[in-house]
Amino acid sequence: MSEINSQIAEALSRIRQERPLIHHITNLVVLNDTANVTLHAGALPVMAHAAEEVAEMTDMAGALVLNTGTLTPARREAMLVAGRKSNERGIPIVLDPVGVGATALRTQTVERLRRELRIAVVRGNPGEIGVLSGVGGTLKGVESLQGMRNPNAVARSMADEWGAVVAISGKRDIVSDGEMVLGVDNGHPWLTKITGTGCMATSVIAAFASVERDYLMAAAGGLSYFGLAAELAVEKANGPASFKVALLDQIYNLQPEQLAKGARVTARAGI
Amino acid sequence: MSEINSQIAEALSRIRQERPLIHHITNLVVLNDTANVTLHAGALPVMAHAAEEVAEMTDMAGALVLNTGTLTPARREAMLVAGRKSNERGIPIVLDPVGVGATALRTQTVERLRRELRIAVVRGNPGEIGVLSGVGGTLKGVESLQGMRNPNAVARSMADEWGAVVAISGKRDIVSDGEMVLGVDNGHPWLTKITGTGCMATSVIAAFASVERDYLMAAAGGLSYFGLAAELAVEKANGPASFKVALLDQIYNLQPEQLAKGARVTARAGI
Amino acid sequence: MSEINSQIAEALSRIRQERPLIHHITNLVVLNDTANVTLHAGALPVMAHAAEEVAEMTDMAGALVLNTGTLTPARREAMLVAGRKSNERGIPIVLDPVGVGATALRTQTVERLRRELRIAVVRGNPGEIGVLSGVGGTLKGVESLQGMRNPNAVARSMADEWGAVVAISGKRDIVSDGEMVLGVDNGHPWLTKITGTGCMATSVIAAFASVERDYLMAAAGGLSYFGLAAELAVEKANGPASFKVALLDQIYNLQPEQLAKGARVTARAGI
Repeated sequence: MSEINSQIAEALSRIRQERPLIHHITNLVVLNDTANVTLHAGALPVMAHAAEEVAEMTDMAGALVLNTGTLTPARREAMLVAGRKSNERGIPIVLDPVGVGATALRTQTVERLRRELRIAVVRGNPGEIGVLSGVGGTLKGVESLQGMRNPNAVARSMADEWGAVVAISGKRDIVSDGEMVLGVDNGHPWLTKITGTGCMATSVIAAFASVERDYLMAAAGGLSYFGLAAELAVEKANGPASFKVALLDQIYNLQPEQLAKGARVTARAGI
Repeated sequence: MSEINSQIAEALSRIRQERPLIHHITNLVVLNDTANVTLHAGALPVMAHAAEEVAEMTDMAGALVLNTGTLTPARREAMLVAGRKSNERGIPIVLDPVGVGATALRTQTVERLRRELRIAVVRGNPGEIGVLSGVGGTLKGVESLQGMRNPNAVARSMADEWGAVVAISGKRDIVSDGEMVLGVDNGHPWLTKITGTGCMATSVIAAFASVERDYLMAAAGGLSYFGLAAELAVEKANGPASFKVALLDQIYNLQPEQLAKGARVTARAGI
Repeated sequence: MSEINSQIAEALSRIRQERPLIHHITNLVVLNDTANVTLHAGALPVMAHAAEEVAEMTDMAGALVLNTGTLTPARREAMLVAGRKSNERGIPIVLDPVGVGATALRTQTVERLRRELRIAVVRGNPGEIGVLSGVGGTLKGVESLQGMRNPNAVARSMADEWGAVVAISGKRDIVSDGEMVLGVDNGHPWLTKITGTGCMATSVIAAFASVERDYLMAAAGGLSYFGLAAELAVEKANGPASFKVALLDQIYNLQPEQLAKGARVTARAGI
């Protein structure tokens, strides 16, 4: 077993022992699914988005998820309040820039979050990361329309510029902290057939980041865990909805020892 | 195979080739289900409801869904902004007047949407269409309490008055453009046992309307496709929740050839 | 069969005959699940939260659910408007004080609801009821971190002080009206593995309270019905998500005769 795999499996064990609170300010489409995925992974979800109360929730949390889907100006304000509290307390912020580049509200919000907050991890699809990294990305609503030419280099260079771990979802997920680049080969095409799987992966990364302060490893660990659960779920799927039920079941059932064996995380060379 | 059936099956094929974006400003109860149903049908959903960004989303879309469930004044403003953009671009608006007649907010909102926008299709239950057509309808919250005396005539006359296609859901769905009246005999009583199936049917109609500019055919096609998926889902159902999972699976699995064979759409005579 | 059990079973029959409307002003995480659970139990759900329309919805309802999850000041105002209408009409308010004690917004909101409204039933977890009763409770976000020392005495004393039925969820649910104390031994540990089961139980209690004006019996009946459905669902569960599907199916399938046999509600002595 590789050292990476045992570090990832160890993080999953710690989530289940410590049960960190993961505060989400997230989009309304995925509220229920991301709360459940967080709970099934072993952490405790809380979804609170009123500016009046988010600081108190973040004050109890082990990580904060900021997700720009179904964004409103009011939710953006709450994100800034909760984000400042996260930074003050030194807990990681995991940003999911849903639909950045599609509307000015989302693009300006992500810019402002970046400017005013210290972000630990950004996870997006190739379109979103393409927009943020400046290499160009195309979104149709919130869907990425194409892959990315050189994701290894893009992730590394954007991570270096942002001072954050960058994760690009895809057939092979790419994760970088600006120095190392890791590839994650777990996952299944069914994940593209249901809405919100990117958001769910972000929740899982946040759970990992709350117990594993090497955020590169947390991001790779969360993605391999989520992807491995998807692989195991496929056999129970008769279509996308039964796949989703099986995926959530597997998130719960998957044990650290299985993750230690099944994670496919590798350092990428030749960049 | 009838000409109607092949036109409907052809529309489903086009949805899966073109993957139109369907922008929803919809109620919060059904956000996840309608996003998934849109994706499983082959289109791309986007759910954005802030007045600050809806015009940009509609600008990329092939159709716009306006649904008055869990309505707020802020969401009504967003509907007007997005609706104007839809009309400007000539893409269809599909209106689901959830709860019209139950509260002044909903009734006045639907009146205003009608006055200020060009609506392509209105789909409602007998209570809602009864209110809108003036023949009288009774709602308990958002549920229709009774059937409708002469839905064929009501649909035709309201369609004529509105200049829009009118679809009335029921054991037999009735669709009219003010001249022709079609009946759709696909469907299953289980559809009344879960919340939001009307809203899901509306999303499917919008996907059809984005690729089939004969909106009478788009509405009938969407309803027959959704109803046929329900018929095929029944055998996997042990209750309403497993029925819902199977329904969403079938929306994805149903192929154009099956729809061409299984759609039961007929012209209604003798009105 | 005990008198309690036949009274409970009778209430379930009345829900299915009368189909009462249950108006929810509830948190956004559980909107879909609580609407479905209400519908599957036999009642009609309506989820409307704009202050502009809630009075009209409550005016048609048989019970009102107020749930403080994902709270905002705007939703608090709507709760007060709808709550006054409920009191005016004499229909029961069932309060689910999600996260009370975790933030000032929630604590002050629950205090204000209590001060300005007549509450029929309060259902919470040990942490929430601990906060409200003054015996002390610990919440991590919205999760209760521990059980309660003497729930029988706490429920009775708080019920007496509030003039409301108090229900404390747990391995054994405890319900009191300030005089009698009932224990409900239906349920299953899987209920703690998915988000929102407390909120769903509250919806079921509201359905019972809309047809059974002995609110002690309504609360015990709702909890035993919900817990029995969970017991029956377990055999179909491969994990928490398939358990949830099976739970919702069983809510629908469970018949009054089964509830009359399977409810485990007992008077608690020796307090």
